[in-house]
Order: sequence, then structure tokens, then C-alpha cells
Amino acid sequence: MISVEEARDRILTYVAVLEAEEKPLLDALGQVLAEDVYSALDIPPMDNTAMDGYALRAADTRSASRGNPLELRVTGEAAAGYVYPGRVEPGTAVRIMTGAPIPVGADAVVPFEETDEMERKHSGSGHLASVRVYKEVEVGESIRPAGGDVRAGDLVLTQDTVLRPSEIGVLASLGRTSARVIRRPVVAILSTGDELVELGQPLGPGQIYDANSYSLAAAVVRLGAIARPLGIARDTVEALTARIREGLAADILLTSAGVSRGDYDIVKDVLAKEGEIAFWSVAMKPGKPLAFGCFYSGDRRIPHVGLPGNPVSAMVTFEVLVRQAILRMMGKAPTWRPTIKAIALDRIVNRHDPRRYFARCVVTREGERYYARLTGPQGSNILTSMARANALTDIPEGVEVVEQGEEITVMMLDWSYGD
Amino acid sequence: MISVEEARDRILTYVAVLEAEEKPLLDALGQVLAEDVYSALDIPPMDNTAMDGYALRAADTRSASRGNPLELRVTGEAAAGYVYPGRVEPGTAVRIMTGAPIPVGADAVVPFEETDEMERKHSGSGHLASVRVYKEVEVGESIRPAGGDVRAGDLVLTQDTVLRPSEIGVLASLGRTSARVIRRPVVAILSTGDELVELGQPLGPGQIYDANSYSLAAAVVRLGAIARPLGIARDTVEALTARIREGLAADILLTSAGVSRGDYDIVKDVLAKEGEIAFWSVAMKPGKPLAFGCFYSGDRRIPHVGLPGNPVSAMVTFEVLVRQAILRMMGKAPTWRPTIKAIALDRIVNRHDPRRYFARCVVTREGERYYARLTGPQGSNILTSMARANALTDIPEGVEVVEQGEEITVMMLDWSYGD
Repeated sequence: MISVEEARDRILTYVAVLEAEEKPLLDALGQVLAEDVYSALDIPPMDNTAMDGYALRAADTRSASRGNPLELRVTGEAAAGYVYPGRVEPGTAVRIMTGAPIPVGADAVVPFEETDEMERKHSGSGHLASVRVYKEVEVGESIRPAGGDVRAGDLVLTQDTVLRPSEIGVLASLGRTSARVIRRPVVAILSTGDELVELGQPLGPGQIYDANSYSLAAAVVRLGAIARPLGIARDTVEALTARIREGLAADILLTSAGVSRGDYDIVKDVLAKEGEIAFWSVAMKPGKPLAFGCFYSGDRRIPHVGLPGNPVSAMVTFEVLVRQAILRMMGKAPTWRPTIKAIALDRIVNRHDPRRYFARCVVTREGERYYARLTGPQGSNILTSMARANALTDIPEGVEVVEQGEEITVMMLDWSYGD
Repeated sequence: MISVEEARDRILTYVAVLEAEEKPLLDALGQVLAEDVYSALDIPPMDNTAMDGYALRAADTRSASRGNPLELRVTGEAAAGYVYPGRVEPGTAVRIMTGAPIPVGADAVVPFEETDEMERKHSGSGHLASVRVYKEVEVGESIRPAGGDVRAGDLVLTQDTVLRPSEIGVLASLGRTSARVIRRPVVAILSTGDELVELGQPLGPGQIYDANSYSLAAAVVRLGAIARPLGIARDTVEALTARIREGLAADILLTSAGVSRGDYDIVKDVLAKEGEIAFWSVAMKPGKPLAFGCFYSGDRRIPHVGLPGNPVSAMVTFEVLVRQAILRMMGKAPTWRPTIKAIALDRIVNRHDPRRYFARCVVTREGERYYARLTGPQGSNILTSMARANALTDIPEGVEVVEQGEEITVMMLDWSYGD
């Protein structure tokens, strides 16, 4: 038996960051930049006004106040997106809307609130020939300088950045219609077992529906990778080998079941015959019987994780071991979901074979404290215990009992799941 | 000016949970169940074995031990998915693989480890006519009872449950190929402003690329809703009205810019003329100028949020106010992203007009403590400050200075962004 960390590290040695692809901007959401992005532009492109107001020369406002308004001649107007064609000469001003470029000659903006703009508007006097300024302003006041956010030539986003909505916005502001990003991994998913039936088919006696294909595909999609379900393979070496070959176009192959010691647990046999077995037992609960290895297809090596067949074990080993491999392929840091400390609301018993224990629990928060309650029976076949959970405990190997009230580490499977 | 809470509550009164739709299972990931789901099946369907071993009568193992092995006649084998056709009579056993139904007559399973199975296998004796049992077992031992996870007729998932990978797995285990879920909202997104240029087009003097359409569409997609970008509307009532009418097939309309007091800030004019304005100023920074209202199309009322034009303001108001409205439409709890307490690593100043302050920051963790550092200049036009951030401060109205080392509340925009 090897530890979770060792299993994780060994899986990661088989997994490399995938190649880059050029993607339209919105399609690249959640992917990782494969290029350093430099700006060809100044943003903003020209000095522009942060306020609606009057562009003028700061010197012309010297000693202006409400008691001593200074009158300037208004020579025109400018809105955002339009460059005022004239020049602001001493004693003049240009009426200017937020975002509009600062006209040549002007070096400050006085906002409407510090002029008689509002009074005149109220009096309905129409187009203004002049404006009274109530405030002395400094050079540069209310002006956003050209290049204040980004200068032409700046390195704006570095390779390895995850493209979130704000990064997508930044790329758009640079005029980029696409981005070079690490492509999404294709994850082939295969269930094995003569007892399994495809959804929509009638069940015979002793048969069950294939849940693992769906929970694993959903976990893969949630992670931002591409799920390629291969269906169900019967428990013969020939059937399994044929299905696995279909999966070798993928970047990684996940199978479930067929990894313990029964006569019909043939995944490890096929893996040993057709590929390479790296190990097949991890000191964790649930999830102890786990095969890892790889197949070869031409000069490609396709990592294969043989997950346990029990639905909970399959999902937990995915979270604890497979998720990080997929993140690595996507160019992301291969981390667990966030872990926090929580107070155990139940006594948690892990006697007999105290492997590292990932029990399903519900974590709730009161103020800044977190509390963890188990989701009832923890049998690794009981998938509903996983559906009720928002976290897994992480109780170290060798700990046989956690008493109620003790602090434990929990891995959050979701927060609010808003997205 | 109204508070963030009041704005949020008023927006939510205009927003209802959308109708249900029937969706194939995997496509429904992240959506909310619109039905109570009962099971038509027992899961597992029959009593079955939790171990590879021998199904037998517990009474036949009385006083068995390694020193006193009891020999039973092996009458056959059964694998998962196959029902053993015979009956386990006193003095007999059936070799049985994990998941296989318990044969009629048997009431316990002795795992291989407690028999001479392994020794015989080693000796290569082939098919076993008998097995020696080394351990006394109780009735029910190593048996998973039929219906132990779910009983036929059980309420398994309730309406309002978010379908995560584990819930998708549960639905699959019930044999469901589809689920009735709240449909995803369609969010129309329109940028306004004569200074804006579509990506891929050359920039004229004083013009900028339309970043808001992209950052908002990405935020909508990340949330699990459907973005319908409407492009850029010119700053005329006619152009804007025409574009807004295109957006009325959507469930909610987001515009950016055109909501402050300049002459060309026409969103509120169109909203007042064609629809209804509910308010247009919120005590938050960035994001003060914000229009909210609705348009009518037949008997449908389409809520409209007129976001500020500055790229950071647009994203922050989306996070703080719009996100919850979209969550509500999706049938989810209208909550903020998770907030936590963090130590301010910078002095944070919010003088002059100390509205509730959502400054961009980077939150890091050391052990169980969190630290928040501002992402440099906080101008609401500076989108790169948002790209560097993983959180927003939530500094209450009226607080002019937070000193370095003080504890503040931060809203996490992402954790590791693994998904």
C-alpha cells in the first residue's frame, strides 16, 4: 500500500501540460494562457476626462470660487469617442463628457458641479456661450492620462494565467479576438462489470444502472475538461481490451471497477497485458483498490486510472487523485480543493484498518467557525451519502476515533456552488 | 442614493424563478431540480456481497477457527450481475464475487481471507469442490441488504437541489436518463457608447475596444447562464431603443454605460421612455451610477440593469447586484460569493465620499489566517486591477480609513479556480 501523496505524485509524473490552441475569446473562459500577452495599445488611448465637465487651462481658474466665479467662453463640445478638432486657448473651455479625449491646449477638467452648468440647464437657456467656474483646479485634475491602465509594449497577462471573466475583459480591451491557451484534456470514461446496465434499458435480476459513467463525466465537465464516455465493458479481457482501445485517442483514461482481487476484476489484467501497471493499492478509505498505469498508442503514452467500482469510492478517488492530474494537463496548479478546519459534530470512528479517511460530511458555518456533520451511513456503495455532502473529512492514517468537538480538516467539495 | 442591500432587494422583487425544462442528465449539471425525485428501485436491488468470498449459512460456521476449520461443499460460483440459480443447503457454499446477489438459502458471506481459498489457489488445484472456513460469522455478515442505500418509493432528491456530479450519479443509479430542471436564464448584454469599437476592427483616435461585452458575457457563462451579446449601441435614443428591443427575448437585459448624468448618457432616457426606471444611484464604490428598471414585451416584463460603463464598475456591480438576480432565476439561493475575514496588508483610504467600498485585492492564506493586499491603483477604469484580484474588500459606508493590520471582510471572487 502506498500513501495518498505518493499515489498523487506518481500519477503526476505520468501527466504533462497539454499543447496550446488558439481559441475565440469567450470559448477560452477557464483555460490557461499559453502566451505572454503584450499590449499594442495605450489604454486609455488618449488623455481623457473622468467627469462630465469643462476642459480648460488650470491657470484660467486661479482664485475662482463660488463668491468669485470666473467666466470662460465655451467654444464647443466633445463626447467620448470624438476628438475635439480645435484648441483650448486661454479664456476658453470645451464642454466634455466622461471618457472624451482632452482637447489640445486644455490641462484640467472642472466638473459640472463646480460650474453654473446646472443652474443654466434649469433655466432652459439652451446652448451655452459661456460658463462660470466656481473652483480653482490643478493641472491634471479629473484627467485620466493616456496609458494610465496599460502602456503600449506592457506585458499585461503572463503565460499560465487562468482566464477568468476579468482576464477575458482585459484581452478584449487590447482588441484581441482570440487567445492562445492550453487545450482542454479529453477524458475517456469506461465502466466495467456484467451487472451494469445502460440508462434507459430494463434491469434484469441483480443488475444495476451504471452511475459511475455519469458522476465521473459530470466531475470532468465541472473541472473544465471534455468527457468522452465509452459506455460499459463486459467482464471479459476481450471486451475490455476492445473498449480501452477506443479510449486511446483521449488524453487520459478512467475506468471504474475491476481493480480488486476477485476473479472478474480484470482491469488490472488488461492493464498488465496491454500496458503497464504502476501500482494498485492506496492507503485511503474509501478507495483502497486503485490501479494506475498507462497504455501506449504509437508514440503516445495514455495514463490510465482504474478507479474502484463502488460509486462513492470512484468519486472520492477522482477528487483526491485524478482531479490534480487533469488540472496539471490543463496547465493549472495540481491542487486539492480548498481545505479548512472544522469542528466535528459527530464521533468519527475508523477502527480495524485506519487508512486515511475521507468521510462524507456537511460543513456549515457560524460566523468564522465551521462545523462538520457526517452524512449518515458511510458505506462506499451509498452514493446518496455523497449527494448530501459538501465536503470530505481528511482524517490521518492511524487515527481510530475523532471525538465530537475535536477539530478536523475538511476538503470543501463546493462552497455555494453558485458557479 | 440607496444602499447595496436595498438595491439588491429591489432588483430581486423583479426577478422570478424561471420555468422548468426536461434535460438529458449530463446537460443538467449545475442546474436546479424542479421535481421531487422518488426511486422506483431498491438500491442495491438484491442482498449482495460486500466481499469476494463464500456465501453460506452462518449456522454452518459455528465454532470454526484456524485450529478447527469446517469444510463445506462448493456447489457453484456467482459474479456480480448474475443470480445463482440454485439454493445454498446446509453444509454447502457458493463462491461469490463482490456485488453478486446472495444466493437463496445463504445468510452470510465468509471472505476469501478467512478460508483456505488463497492456499488452494497457490497450489493450483483449479476448481474447488470444497472450501475450509476458518471463522465463525454472524447472520448478515458481509452482506449489503437490498434497499440499503435507497428503497423503492423513497424520496431521493428534493426539488431545489443543485445537480452536482454526485446528484447526477444518483439520478443515473435510479435509471433516469433526464431530469426536470429550472432552465438556464438568457442574459442579453449590450454595450453603449460612440467611443466603442468591436474587436477585430481598427481603432480611430479616442476610440477603445468594447471590453464590457466580453467580461460580462464571461461572468454570465461562468455562473451557468446563457450570454446573448447584442454588440454595441451608438449613443442615440433610436439606436439604443432598436438594440434593446432585440434584447427583449432574453430573461434579463444588461447594458453598460449611459447611466450617469452626461448628455450622452441615454440609457436612463430610453428606459424611462420605453419602460420603467426603478432607481439609478447606489451607495457603493465603484458603481454608484446604476440604472434599474424593466421593459415590457407583450405580457412579459424584462428586468434591465444599466451598469456603469467603466470596466471595473461594470464587473463589480455585476458581482454585487446582478449575480444574485441570475442565481434567483436559476432557482438558486441569491447569495454573494463567500465572504471571509482577512487582515489588511495595506492602508485603505476611502475619503471624501466614503460609500461602501469594494476595492480589488489579492487574498492569500497562511495556515488558517487570510491576508488582503490591494491590487494597486483602484481607478474604476483600470481593468487590469480586477484581473490581478481574487477578492473584493467590503468596507462599510462611512469608514474613511482602514489601517494596515486591521481585519476586514473580503468577498472571494475565486478560490483556486480549479472549476
